Amino acid sequence: MTSPIQTVAGDTAASEIVGRFVQEGIGSLVVTHSESDDIEGIVTESDVIRQVAMGTDMDAVTASAVMSTPVVTIGADEPIATAADEMRTHSIRRLPVVADGNLVGIVTTTDLTHYLPRLRQTLLRERPSA
Amino acid sequence: MTSPIQTVAGDTAASEIVGRFVQEGIGSLVVTHSESDDIEGIVTESDVIRQVAMGTDMDAVTASAVMSTPVVTIGADEPIATAADEMRTHSIRRLPVVADGNLVGIVTTTDLTHYLPRLRQTLLRERPSA
Repeated sequence: MTSPIQTVAGDTAASEIVGRFVQEGIGSLVVTHSESDDIEGIVTESDVIRQVAMGTDMDAVTASAVMSTPVVTIGADEPIATAADEMRTHSIRRLPVVADGNLVGIVTTTDLTHYLPRLRQTLLRERPSA
Repeated sequence: MTSPIQTVAGDTAASEIVGRFVQEGIGSLVVTHSESDDIEGIVTESDVIRQVAMGTDMDAVTASAVMSTPVVTIGADEPIATAADEMRTHSIRRLPVVADGNLVGIVTTTDLTHYLPRLRQTLLRERPSA
């Protein structure tokens, strides 16, 4: 996973989110409550693209208005394969990672893809050599 | 991989591409020459987001103006792990698949993520049970 996770407040303008996507080289921002830090939603590149298709003025809408909800999360101690299954089940590419009720990172299809060759090598190496 | 691959001509307006992303539930379109079918570039969600950040009028720019080049491709008979390595090396999430000089599909980080649990099971099953 990638950590720390990047978050944003619900009243942030969509245009600011787009700017952060580009400047920080990220594809999503988790929307959290400014005081409780509770997860309220997630704004992804696809959410922004959908607004662009509708001709939305990005300065005129907030994170809360364009975010996807509810957010599917995964526990920090869950296996990689479970993360992959959750992404397929929910047709999503990003899973915020939670430990002890706190947001600790995010795992994406890109993270799992980068891990794939290593997974293969690890499993092959673990085979009994006989 | 996903096939057939979705393509678009270089003179297509970016706004039309955004509309296809949403309607077809895709995150990229390969730009091909209208006569030769040669690959000219690829327009991804990230390319569009970059234009949004610059305040570009999507009706006023074409696929050729916003696409990424050169396009990294992979042979249809290459192993999954090679596709994953290529994506990591080039920091990309999509690889058009080529066979006999023709574009036959596209493999994405989402495809590889969906394959990961199966890869794990296959490798574990192949282990000698002794």
